[in-house]
Amino acid sequence: MSYSYEIKDFDAGGRIGNFKLGSKKLDTPNLFPVVNPFQNLISPKEFYNHFKIQAIFTNAYIIYKNRENNPNIIKKGLHEHLGFPGIIATDSGGFQDYMYAGDIKLAPEEIEPFQEKIGSDCPVILDIPVQTTDPYEEAKRKVDITIRRAKDNILRRQRTDTAWFAPIHGSIYPDLLKVSSQEMSKLDYGIYAIGGVVKTFIDYRFDLDIEILLNVRKWIDPSKPLHMFGLGLPNFFSLAVACGADTFDSAAYILYAKDDRYFTFTGTKNIKDLSELPCHCPICIKYSASEIQKLPKDKRTEVIARHNLYHSFSEIRTIKQAIREGTLWDLVEQRVHVHPKYIKALRKSIEFPDHFNQLLNMNKIKGQKLLSPFSFYRPHLQYFRKKIENFKIFPSKKILLCVPELDLPSDKGISFEGWKKEIKLNPYYEEIQVVIISNSLSIIPIELAEIYPAGQHEGFVNIEHKKKEISILLSTFKKFLSENKSQFKFIKILIPITFVNEYQVQEQFQPKNHLIYYIKNLISENFPEIKTSVIQTIEEL
Amino acid sequence: MSYSYEIKDFDAGGRIGNFKLGSKKLDTPNLFPVVNPFQNLISPKEFYNHFKIQAIFTNAYIIYKNRENNPNIIKKGLHEHLGFPGIIATDSGGFQDYMYAGDIKLAPEEIEPFQEKIGSDCPVILDIPVQTTDPYEEAKRKVDITIRRAKDNILRRQRTDTAWFAPIHGSIYPDLLKVSSQEMSKLDYGIYAIGGVVKTFIDYRFDLDIEILLNVRKWIDPSKPLHMFGLGLPNFFSLAVACGADTFDSAAYILYAKDDRYFTFTGTKNIKDLSELPCHCPICIKYSASEIQKLPKDKRTEVIARHNLYHSFSEIRTIKQAIREGTLWDLVEQRVHVHPKYIKALRKSIEFPDHFNQLLNMNKIKGQKLLSPFSFYRPHLQYFRKKIENFKIFPSKKILLCVPELDLPSDKGISFEGWKKEIKLNPYYEEIQVVIISNSLSIIPIELAEIYPAGQHEGFVNIEHKKKEISILLSTFKKFLSENKSQFKFIKILIPITFVNEYQVQEQFQPKNHLIYYIKNLISENFPEIKTSVIQTIEEL
Repeated sequence: MSYSYEIKDFDAGGRIGNFKLGSKKLDTPNLFPVVNPFQNLISPKEFYNHFKIQAIFTNAYIIYKNRENNPNIIKKGLHEHLGFPGIIATDSGGFQDYMYAGDIKLAPEEIEPFQEKIGSDCPVILDIPVQTTDPYEEAKRKVDITIRRAKDNILRRQRTDTAWFAPIHGSIYPDLLKVSSQEMSKLDYGIYAIGGVVKTFIDYRFDLDIEILLNVRKWIDPSKPLHMFGLGLPNFFSLAVACGADTFDSAAYILYAKDDRYFTFTGTKNIKDLSELPCHCPICIKYSASEIQKLPKDKRTEVIARHNLYHSFSEIRTIKQAIREGTLWDLVEQRVHVHPKYIKALRKSIEFPDHFNQLLNMNKIKGQKLLSPFSFYRPHLQYFRKKIENFKIFPSKKILLCVPELDLPSDKGISFEGWKKEIKLNPYYEEIQVVIISNSLSIIPIELAEIYPAGQHEGFVNIEHKKKEISILLSTFKKFLSENKSQFKFIKILIPITFVNEYQVQEQFQPKNHLIYYIKNLISENFPEIKTSVIQTIEEL
Repeated sequence: MSYSYEIKDFDAGGRIGNFKLGSKKLDTPNLFPVVNPFQNLISPKEFYNHFKIQAIFTNAYIIYKNRENNPNIIKKGLHEHLGFPGIIATDSGGFQDYMYAGDIKLAPEEIEPFQEKIGSDCPVILDIPVQTTDPYEEAKRKVDITIRRAKDNILRRQRTDTAWFAPIHGSIYPDLLKVSSQEMSKLDYGIYAIGGVVKTFIDYRFDLDIEILLNVRKWIDPSKPLHMFGLGLPNFFSLAVACGADTFDSAAYILYAKDDRYFTFTGTKNIKDLSELPCHCPICIKYSASEIQKLPKDKRTEVIARHNLYHSFSEIRTIKQAIREGTLWDLVEQRVHVHPKYIKALRKSIEFPDHFNQLLNMNKIKGQKLLSPFSFYRPHLQYFRKKIENFKIFPSKKILLCVPELDLPSDKGISFEGWKKEIKLNPYYEEIQVVIISNSLSIIPIELAEIYPAGQHEGFVNIEHKKKEISILLSTFKKFLSENKSQFKFIKILIPITFVNEYQVQEQFQPKNHLIYYIKNLISENFPEIKTSVIQTIEEL
């Protein structure tokens, strides 16, 4: 094996890795732009030299068909032919087969060795993509054939300096995705790659693509990069990376450009609809919108494609930066707000908490900024809530004092300082267990007030949740109290009239917007045996 | 008067305008970068020629103090001195007075005529900024003095080719903001400008700044541009423009650069924390992060400042594009997800529906993409809900048939097509009034199914709302039914078991996630006199 993959950093469910193939390198997450093997408005050479692109995809099937030129390419090799010294991946025609089914009659025994002959770094076996409309039996048949071909391919390989792609299929059938992932994981492939997701992507069924990705992530060998075939819209990248995708390939930058479509973070625009360019890439600084509109077709396509490339790769760098900082969830929650279908896809990801727990990076102690209803499900918060359920209170504590988290996280703020001082002066101080009731974390024993993320989260001042989230918070509290109830003689619930906010201004406390209001009811319903009372000040304790 | 302001387009509460002062132009929304009157790492000339910046701000007080150089500037004029042929605005020192109170003793009679002498296009009167900590009486005194000075200034003016800034103050006191706005609106000023908002901005109290802005917008003359002094962080621009701000000025691009701080749409980063540059401006394409880190201090500041400028102005263009498209709310909802404090500020804006209704542009029929819980309060949806309350049903209709909006807006989709056909076959067809129960709009009489925004909204497939929003929807329905109830003998509520979704797949209908479930209860509680039944298919009708 001439390839290796090393994970350097991770956050949310995403990771930064270094893939090496001989002397060639690919940092992940990354995008392989797709180039035509014969003619390109922007040359692969410029991709490498100017855009610093590490890897490209091209189509071996088109070269294979071109009987006139392919002996020449076999002779000098694909890298020299394209003028691209980085990693060149080649598609086998499986996708063409799937998009234009019937026209192509191709055998793995032809196209797979052909890819070796032309010197592809990362060839793809000839897979049979499963489509969402395939009945189960048909889908299973396709998955089985692709797995068998993957095994055959290994026996047939001549070169040792390649990293083959193993396509994973299964579409809407989780058990097929499981079989496909598990079987492929047993085989010597450099990169695993999810196929059959383009049609759904074009239909904006991002939720389905994310579901497929997260199902594959459950079973795929995590020590290899995981690729998604054909998903090249930058607005999708951050969510997909957070859900475990490492690389993408796409011709979108040029295909969209041919239709005058210009990438932006607020969606793709037709250049003809723009009177100014809302971007600052070198192209958009050089040209005005009307200048681009007036360019001849090919030049216009080239110029828009350049913009689309700049845009795509700055998003890749933005994602890497977010992983390093531990803010990938922040970025995802911002990006999905470009379209309801992305939001639907983010919602889907919540159904796969195990994936995110697995890559939970408690070393990233960047404060959790709670930005949207989805922030509630961030792995760091879920982890804390899960742990706290079983927290054992020190046996000497007889009084449980519940105090509300205010506008600053955990026990921070002027009002809290005052309460803590007053509690210390109480004659029963040694017997009092203070817990902070939090709209994000349910319950924070005061001993853990500084522990991450208790002391480092910001956002849910009011209870922003729907019934489901409130019931999760209450269930956490209930388990905690069930675990510890035998020792408590009294529960005191502090519901203040006012508090001093972070700007040193007196503010009304809104109990109905706070979990503490629900906690009060929960205790009286579920723990009637404990004497419970509501107090407005610590003095009443 | 040598100035004019023409509104060219508007969306949300924001507008695109052309401000003209003689032959000089300023398109709004826009940003005046602040430059030093004597030394700049990036020359004002380059601002004009390379960055295409139309207007800058500089400080007349610093020039005034510089007795050595100011005769020369008076002689050749500010434009030649700075090498900037566009609009030059000058600050009077009021802000310095406020930030470093006590050090400066300045009289309006000195600094205001001085600004005319040096040839400022847009001078600022010497105001007395109100601070959030000022008691009411003190704040009132400052507002009164500033208004009196504004009146005095008019009498003292020598030049007719200027557009003076009138600073508006009042801080946390809405009635002072009202007085200040109303009184200033009576006076001949070219630009109104909200002052005293920088301290709160630095403290991330964006909600307070937005509240001040929306209070001023209520009373200020809308035929002039409205400026916000000193608020130069690009992530704030879209929300502020949506709330009625037209222009900003700021030295943030350079002040932040001096501290190695680099603007991004996911927050400001220290250049030393970046291993890659998540941007594609000409600077970030030319340099790597480590190259910038190694530059000598001044060069590093300059380079980061250039990036910050590119970034700031591309955001201005993005906002203008969104106004033209009618998607400013989409942009705002995306941008605020950078920090909880911006979200808090967006929430504050919901308390000022009148501002947004006033600029409601029903000609912008771009589909409403419902992206976040805040989308519910978009003016287009509020307008529709308000109108529909009084909708009069044709008197021949005796049966009210409530059907649920599905995954596509209004009456779109395969299931709906089927229902409509079946309804037409019903012997009582002429007596049936079909209304679509919608999680976004409450109720859509089928006649209005194609009317904007009924047929052009996307997002709330499930009821995503909290109690408040549900009660708004229910209240709309209740008013509608009260208005029409006398004619209905029967109400039929269709709650299907399944439906065909937009991907032609049969899907379970989740009644508990839909307003129709609440409607059912509302009718039985409030309209017991009407015979009401739930049906699962149109056949049962």
